Amino acid sequence: MPFWTVDETHAPDLESWVETANGHTDFPIQNLPYGVVSIDGTARIGVAIGDMVLDLAGCARSGLLPDRCVPACQDTTLNRLLGLPAADRRILRSRLSELLSDPRHRPEVEAHLRPAAEGMVQLPMTIGDYTDFYVGIHHANNVGRQFRPDNPLLPNYKYVPIGYHGRASTIRPTGIPVRRPCGQQKAPDATAPVFAPSKRLDYELELGVWIGSGNRLGEPIAIGTAHEHIAGFSLLNDWSARDLQAWEYQPLGPFLAKNFHTTVSPWIVTSEALAPFRIPQPARPDGDPAPLDYLADEQDQTHGALSIRLEVLISSRRMREMGMPAHKLSSGPASNMYWTVQQIVAHHASNGCALQSGDLLGTGTISAPTRDGFGSLLELTVGGKEPITLPTGEKRCFLEDGDELELRGTAYAPGYVPIGFGECSARILSAPAIP
Amino acid sequence: MPFWTVDETHAPDLESWVETANGHTDFPIQNLPYGVVSIDGTARIGVAIGDMVLDLAGCARSGLLPDRCVPACQDTTLNRLLGLPAADRRILRSRLSELLSDPRHRPEVEAHLRPAAEGMVQLPMTIGDYTDFYVGIHHANNVGRQFRPDNPLLPNYKYVPIGYHGRASTIRPTGIPVRRPCGQQKAPDATAPVFAPSKRLDYELELGVWIGSGNRLGEPIAIGTAHEHIAGFSLLNDWSARDLQAWEYQPLGPFLAKNFHTTVSPWIVTSEALAPFRIPQPARPDGDPAPLDYLADEQDQTHGALSIRLEVLISSRRMREMGMPAHKLSSGPASNMYWTVQQIVAHHASNGCALQSGDLLGTGTISAPTRDGFGSLLELTVGGKEPITLPTGEKRCFLEDGDELELRGTAYAPGYVPIGFGECSARILSAPAIP
Repeated sequence: MPFWTVDETHAPDLESWVETANGHTDFPIQNLPYGVVSIDGTARIGVAIGDMVLDLAGCARSGLLPDRCVPACQDTTLNRLLGLPAADRRILRSRLSELLSDPRHRPEVEAHLRPAAEGMVQLPMTIGDYTDFYVGIHHANNVGRQFRPDNPLLPNYKYVPIGYHGRASTIRPTGIPVRRPCGQQKAPDATAPVFAPSKRLDYELELGVWIGSGNRLGEPIAIGTAHEHIAGFSLLNDWSARDLQAWEYQPLGPFLAKNFHTTVSPWIVTSEALAPFRIPQPARPDGDPAPLDYLADEQDQTHGALSIRLEVLISSRRMREMGMPAHKLSSGPASNMYWTVQQIVAHHASNGCALQSGDLLGTGTISAPTRDGFGSLLELTVGGKEPITLPTGEKRCFLEDGDELELRGTAYAPGYVPIGFGECSARILSAPAIP
Repeated sequence: MPFWTVDETHAPDLESWVETANGHTDFPIQNLPYGVVSIDGTARIGVAIGDMVLDLAGCARSGLLPDRCVPACQDTTLNRLLGLPAADRRILRSRLSELLSDPRHRPEVEAHLRPAAEGMVQLPMTIGDYTDFYVGIHHANNVGRQFRPDNPLLPNYKYVPIGYHGRASTIRPTGIPVRRPCGQQKAPDATAPVFAPSKRLDYELELGVWIGSGNRLGEPIAIGTAHEHIAGFSLLNDWSARDLQAWEYQPLGPFLAKNFHTTVSPWIVTSEALAPFRIPQPARPDGDPAPLDYLADEQDQTHGALSIRLEVLISSRRMREMGMPAHKLSSGPASNMYWTVQQIVAHHASNGCALQSGDLLGTGTISAPTRDGFGSLLELTVGGKEPITLPTGEKRCFLEDGDELELRGTAYAPGYVPIGFGECSARILSAPAIP
């Protein structure tokens, strides 16, 4: 079954008996994202619906779920559930849609609903490996131009979905504060580096791709089947210390500039939920090479991209004290990616690298070609040279202590109910004391 | 207690009643490395002694081990055991030394000994994150010279212990064959890359550093306490596809060129076992900068390096058919590192990055300044330009299918029994078919 197949769970007139799921919400009944919440002190798999969470372990115990999904629904992470065959995942989604829409099920289901505000949200999967890509071509252009004005993109960019390994142990769900990192940094005119708190702390707007099922070591994933390995998506903020990055990254890439913290939205919006929001991959500019065979697939061309609107908002401590709403820094479409998520999965496994259920892939910063859609402060402030002004009059070249950064995402398509990604935000804490 | 403290377990006249532990072996009673072996179909923690393995779960059940270590000894990985406080690990080591040396214990202990050849060896720890460093300064010089003859080391090298994240899911113990990867590669005179089996498959001689206990996110590890986090060491072969690497690595570092397979020796030679083999960190050449404060520690200067002799051997299919022994490619000391293992741990956590029990750090290729100690074919054959000749007359620029590569390591010091690292070898399989 093609991965863009739309079924009755996407019907725009479908409503839930959970009232907050109807109207303005990231989590209408057409979404049904999975997450892990702490209920009564134990981790439980849940489904977000409006401002409530459905406890799947409870539903499983009560005999409400398809038999073949019951064991996985009682786990404390989503690794097994999202590794189930696509057909099983579709059956579970259909059943959840039915349970939460048909009022006849309300009495038996309602006992397993909790207010989302009550349960502390956790990471949804045990993350084996985290890989960050670089497929936002406008970001690559914007950043490259700061270093190489005449030749911003390196020769490999239009052939290779560039990626590098990141740190799995420092990925955190929304809400966990980010401690400003210390590290080596060298001013252009200094003779030697110093070790100090980063002065150029930045965010990066990305989509996170969750792997549901992996491949065996030595056995590549064909581009035509790459979609089967993708369980779903989150928002991802790849916090970056630009001063550490500039000094350390040659010749082996970013390391301490990135691995101090990564924030994800903890609800996994499934590939099934996103079926109506599949769009053609934007055409490559004239003169660009075609993808090599192992990355070329007709279905990926016609349905491989996603219609998701992304936004970044900031609030300073002062703004919050004055009761001001968060200030929008940028917005743009997720289709500003030179490679599709299927292409990055196929590329990742093309050398036989074994992906596993729970692996997380970041797309890399997704920027639009114009300033209103730039996905990092490095781009918005032109490397810190043109500060932005907040509604309070405060200036920002990079993030300051107390700033809170929030990513938002909404998938939309004509004739369908938009679905959102939930919260992906965190606040900056001051650096630890240097002993 | 300083990490180089020598005690009765290191006594050179200590012998085991396990006869193969005395005489020529990597695993005399002074070593006592931990591993995980498959005994009767189940994973068990074991200790290598001569050509036998002591089943720790069995010993624990029989009441032979210190109470405080019993639960961890019954796990199926070493993550908990090697995360125990240093004092507990020392008590366990003392007890194991006593059990295996005092003949009065032989009757009760012998029931828990198995021939090493019987148990399939597994990865010793569940590896959360794998990081590879680049501290072999002669390797950095040799490789850098191929690209930048006048300026082989980048300006950051003598300030920053350069590292990058690798792939945890593709680390395998000795003996698991390595499938030649396919990937993008571009000949210097070609206008576009092709996707094909790597033609420049190489090995890299490294030490692996196992993290026993980690740190909390946002809380750096001081250089003076870094040794407490290091549980032990293995040999590590960072297989590398040089053609993939050359084309993909800009600007974010190595990715598919490295992540298809990494081989480790599966016995963890503990920090306690290596205490007698601690030596001063070699003096930096005149004119080199001193380490920044967060990497500077007097004890690390005086005792931070390791006296380990490393060797690389190769055998081709033809050599094995002719019954020839493996051919030595190089040998040299592990002290050819610009940074100590304590410095790389402190650096890794200096931005607050959370290390965890089971993390694996590679040192990077350890090469000597002279050709007889070069740790990769890239260096030995000068980038494939000067082939080496095997005893059969076969030439090698890079590895061919059927080649078997073996790393060896021995810690030695005057007055002490040398201890070895066991097997770290694997054979090259042909690339998978490209669909």
